[in-house]
This record gives sequence, C-alpha cells and structure tokens, in this order.
Amino acid sequence: MDEVMAQVVPKFLRLYEQHFGIKPNSEDYHGKKLYQLPGAKELREALFAKGFFRDLPVMPGSQEVIKELLEDYEVFVVTAAMEFRNSFEDKYDWLQEHFPFISWKKVVFCGYKSVIRADYMIDDHVHNLEAFEGKGLLFTATHNVDENRFERVNNWEEVRQFFEREKSKS
Amino acid sequence: MDEVMAQVVPKFLRLYEQHFGIKPNSEDYHGKKLYQLPGAKELREALFAKGFFRDLPVMPGSQEVIKELLEDYEVFVVTAAMEFRNSFEDKYDWLQEHFPFISWKKVVFCGYKSVIRADYMIDDHVHNLEAFEGKGLLFTATHNVDENRFERVNNWEEVRQFFEREKSKS
Repeated sequence: MDEVMAQVVPKFLRLYEQHFGIKPNSEDYHGKKLYQLPGAKELREALFAKGFFRDLPVMPGSQEVIKELLEDYEVFVVTAAMEFRNSFEDKYDWLQEHFPFISWKKVVFCGYKSVIRADYMIDDHVHNLEAFEGKGLLFTATHNVDENRFERVNNWEEVRQFFEREKSKS
Repeated sequence: MDEVMAQVVPKFLRLYEQHFGIKPNSEDYHGKKLYQLPGAKELREALFAKGFFRDLPVMPGSQEVIKELLEDYEVFVVTAAMEFRNSFEDKYDWLQEHFPFISWKKVVFCGYKSVIRADYMIDDHVHNLEAFEGKGLLFTATHNVDENRFERVNNWEEVRQFFEREKSKS
C-alpha cells in the first residue's frame, strides 16, 4: 500500500516543515525516507498515530491499473501494517473508500512479507522483494532510487506496460 | 487463531443459550459451527462486534507448544480476520496479552489463506488447507470432526508429537 498505492511522502514533507520550519530539498532525501534526514528520526512516530494512514492521497494510476489487472490476475493487497496497531482500521477504511473493487478476501496485513506466496510482487522495499520467491518489481520511491537489484517500475503506467509485455509472452 | 489458539465455541454456547434459553446438545452441532444450527444463523453477527475476539480463552497447550516450536521453526500466526474490521485491534491485543513472545513481524491478518507460503499450516478449516501447498494439519473443531482429507491433530500435545516425529525424520 504505502508508497505504491498510497502516497506517504506529501504527509512527511508537511510534518518536516511543521517541525523544522523549512522544506527539505529533494536532493537531501534522495535515497532516504524523510525521517532518515538528520534530526528527523522522531517524525517516524507519526506512523503510530490514529488517522495517519486514513487520508493519504491515492497514487496516480493505481486504481485504474489495478482494476485492469483484476481482469487477468488474482490481485492481493499486502501491507506491512503489523508494526502499527493504530493503522489497521485506517488502512481498511482507506481501501474501502478508494479500492472498493478489491474484496476483503484479497487484503493482507502482515509483518514480514516473506510469508507471502505469489507470482509477482510490486513493492517499494528491496528487503521485501529479496524475501520473495516470485518476480519482484521495485516501485520507485525516494528511499529506493539508487537500488538496481530489481526491475524497476516508476509509476502505474509502467506497471501496466510490464503486465502487457507479460501477457504477450504467454 | 480461532479454534486453534483461541477457543471460540464457549462464547457461542453462551450466546446460543442466551438466545434460545437452552443449551444445544453436542451431538446437534457435531460437524457444524454453532451458528449453523437451525434458526441460529444470526448468532454469527456477534463476530462483527467490537470485543468479540478480545476475551476468548486460550486453547490449552498452545502457548507452551508454540514457545517450544519457536526454538526450531519460524512460526507465523495467520488469521482470516479481514472479514471483521472490528476484530483487528482485539486480535492484536489478545496476541500481545497471551503470546507476547510472538513478534508482530510474524503476525498476518488476511482473507484467503491461499496467499500464504509456509512448510506447515495448522488450521481448523479444510478450505484453508486445500489452498495450501505445504503440509496441512487439521486441528480438531466441532465443525470438522467428519473430515478425513488431512492429517488430524486433536490438541496441542498432538501438535508437539507431530513435530517431534518430523524432527526425528530429519
């Protein structure tokens, strides 16, 4: 979900500005999460608050492309929510609001994603893709721009194109 | 979790008695869930209420045997919670209380368990084991007593014995 279906960076940019009184430069958080900037560690605490995950903007294109993928694939939403007890209802409600066409049967809240069995995984974290036995696609986010161990998709249009190529192969 | 780590039947027996003014005979719900008894369908609504999953009794032996299994195995708790939005925090808190030695990293709330990758699955539902590619163990519950498609474990002592036999094989 986060940084793939839901945009998290805009909220952290706002929190950063509230906290430090200045906007960070995008070069400063290249290859990082915003809370990995010097002195910003405590911003991560926001993830534990009720409401944090409820009003995140939808990643452009995700709704349309997932709807299309549902015609050919069994699509599961798998999110590493388990660290954040207060995120469960927010994440559930957010999905109901923005992705009502995804059944609760296909939603997974987990910790480690190593327990997931699937053919493809689209994720912004290399450590999730490393533990995955299927084909991993790295969805571009500020913190992974320097990674080159996985095939990269920069946006949902590129996800669509990837699966079109897969389809033409079979 | 339910009917494997947590006892659900005692609560439904109480609800049944409150609703109908009589206790059901155990022969009547042999091979069934209690809410599958005639006229009892609406009892299932209780699963959607806040609090339902918070105070369930722990299945005897589950804490001790899981603790032992953790010495040799990576143990995940996988529960089909996703139908019940109000169960998430209750299930999380229940695990924290009764199984504090299981990390959030190893907890999964899902819908269909077909998305789970593991070597073994201990479950009370045949449909979960059918969708599983590893070795399934059917944990005895009222609703599965007539099933014979999977190796059966009647209690946690039998789970312990099963894994002792597995260990002696390797």
